[in-house]
Amino acid sequence: MSTTKASQSTTATASDENPSVTGAFGSCPLPIFDHPNIVMGHGSGGKLSAELIDKIFVQRFRNPILDRMDDQAVLEIGGMRLAFTTDSFVVTPLFFPGGDIGHLAVNGTVNDLAMCGARPLYLSAAFILEEGLPTQDLARVVESMRDAANAANIQLVTGDTKVVNRGKGDKVFITTTGIGIVDRPTEMSADRAQPGDKVILSGFIGDHGITILSQREHLEFESDLKSDCAPLHSLVEAMLNEAEANGNIKGIRCMRDPTRGGVATVLNEIARKSHVGMRLHESSIPVRESVRGACEVLGLDPLYVANEGKLLAVVAPQIADQLIVRMRKHPLGTESQIIGEITGQPRDMVLMKTSIGGTRVVDVLFGEQMPRIC
Amino acid sequence: MSTTKASQSTTATASDENPSVTGAFGSCPLPIFDHPNIVMGHGSGGKLSAELIDKIFVQRFRNPILDRMDDQAVLEIGGMRLAFTTDSFVVTPLFFPGGDIGHLAVNGTVNDLAMCGARPLYLSAAFILEEGLPTQDLARVVESMRDAANAANIQLVTGDTKVVNRGKGDKVFITTTGIGIVDRPTEMSADRAQPGDKVILSGFIGDHGITILSQREHLEFESDLKSDCAPLHSLVEAMLNEAEANGNIKGIRCMRDPTRGGVATVLNEIARKSHVGMRLHESSIPVRESVRGACEVLGLDPLYVANEGKLLAVVAPQIADQLIVRMRKHPLGTESQIIGEITGQPRDMVLMKTSIGGTRVVDVLFGEQMPRIC
Repeated sequence: MSTTKASQSTTATASDENPSVTGAFGSCPLPIFDHPNIVMGHGSGGKLSAELIDKIFVQRFRNPILDRMDDQAVLEIGGMRLAFTTDSFVVTPLFFPGGDIGHLAVNGTVNDLAMCGARPLYLSAAFILEEGLPTQDLARVVESMRDAANAANIQLVTGDTKVVNRGKGDKVFITTTGIGIVDRPTEMSADRAQPGDKVILSGFIGDHGITILSQREHLEFESDLKSDCAPLHSLVEAMLNEAEANGNIKGIRCMRDPTRGGVATVLNEIARKSHVGMRLHESSIPVRESVRGACEVLGLDPLYVANEGKLLAVVAPQIADQLIVRMRKHPLGTESQIIGEITGQPRDMVLMKTSIGGTRVVDVLFGEQMPRIC
Repeated sequence: MSTTKASQSTTATASDENPSVTGAFGSCPLPIFDHPNIVMGHGSGGKLSAELIDKIFVQRFRNPILDRMDDQAVLEIGGMRLAFTTDSFVVTPLFFPGGDIGHLAVNGTVNDLAMCGARPLYLSAAFILEEGLPTQDLARVVESMRDAANAANIQLVTGDTKVVNRGKGDKVFITTTGIGIVDRPTEMSADRAQPGDKVILSGFIGDHGITILSQREHLEFESDLKSDCAPLHSLVEAMLNEAEANGNIKGIRCMRDPTRGGVATVLNEIARKSHVGMRLHESSIPVRESVRGACEVLGLDPLYVANEGKLLAVVAPQIADQLIVRMRKHPLGTESQIIGEITGQPRDMVLMKTSIGGTRVVDVLFGEQMPRIC
């Protein structure tokens, strides 16, 4: 992420830059958004989400930091670069093999900080509890959060609790917000991919999404399947150390964790922001047999299934092999692979060479594949 | 608030300092909390809330910053003092006279930053939307947030959106998190009140709570009653300027905005944390006739009703009168009053001299007075 100098005055110009948004709002009820009501797909992480975020939020709050649309803001305060990120967690069920909503809430925010090269420092947590929630469940969730925070060396320093009437919430929703410090000369952003760069994936995809779905629908695909929920900050640190040792820290162009919308959605975002093409090799993308089998039964594509402990990186070709060697030594990166490369053409698109030798377009998810996965 | 140096290592010692919390949890289901289920009162801001926060959250996350239990954390990062605060907003109805959930979410966080003397800088917003929410309502809320952010000169730089199924949420919940900079040598904290200090209140109490309740219950007490929802940062700035001009910035011992739980709850917290007594004068506490009338009909005490644009300050007697003069020149402080003073005895208690000449104890609210007020 490049240095983004925030100006307090930029928000004030929103209506000048974009007069139709505020100007027309009084006379025409919905000048810029053609969905009269929110649908589940608006939370999918796919095209509908992007449209909602752009047309309802970004166009109204317009400022240079928000316009970057990265998963975190990097703020310059007093000469320091601080990363700042927030996420609400609404996963159902609360507890699942491999984790729970508390684990997810801490690790999700730790990972969003890590993806811009920040060292996680401080965390806030806001709870919306539904009347009737067993306090023992809440205590379990809070203990998970404590353990996850300790593991990631991030300190929970402030919080809030609200209670809503029975039937007006769903047990517990958690919003975590994190602050981290970017203390290396990294320049990571989704618009920095260049033709020739390699695309790295840190391991098996789809474990989290398929685990949640199996639990929710009481499907029993494989008894050993569990969420990959994990904090990625130390894997990122190892990668930054390796790039620095090779004198090429800027060779790590960008990192993203493919959560909602999966690998396909993140790679499409990078391709579009960098105005490059991308070519993936299906045979090199690690998918467990249990996940592949479940996806076939359910009619899902693992490329679109959520992960909670995996990262994608676009890196300079000169350091790609060294990064893979280093990542495979880390417990969360043992299955790391180069899964593709950046191409000049066709721009803004992700293509995949399939295992049977054909080539297909990997497009962005339109609406809902699996709601409330995180 | 005094400088709080955060140590990353402190969280790791939680279980050592407090072995019974984690150690006993496996063998005994609820060793430290005797409510099997969450009730509305756990969100009241009163005694039940305090018990939940202490026994479920603070005892598990134990660290010096969280232990202060202020409405915001003050972090030392790179020699700077940064304020960090989060709040979820679940108010119903979404729109009410004087504001809406968007206004409330921005101003609530701006005010929590201002109460430790911080200048608001950056804001994040996380939305939990219920399937079926009219997008036009969401757009109205977002436009309110933009206007409130511009008015408070705070920049929204990152966010998140989740969607939950119909019946699993309530239209829209918003969690805002703010970062501000404490760039004056203030020392404000709830444990700094001293005998002889004066208690200042910035205006009429109870407007917000009674407005929300009137809307919700379709009561028509007074057509002109509206929420006092407002950003207090510039009123705080005027007070800090005045204290500085008097060479006594540390004479402002603490500030708090009396939201959930009202004036009574906040003053009790200050009395207990400072181990002092407090004596209020009922006749000097400004309450509108419409609010007083509504409270009488509903059996409520205005001292416990929520406010969203008022502040309480405990200040040194030497600067109290000058502060009142300065505050009354500010549009949000025209009705500022000295409403009482700090006493040595009886410790940890708030007493009030009533209008008819008696004295009564002003205790903390136990459970729920008005749910979902913010």
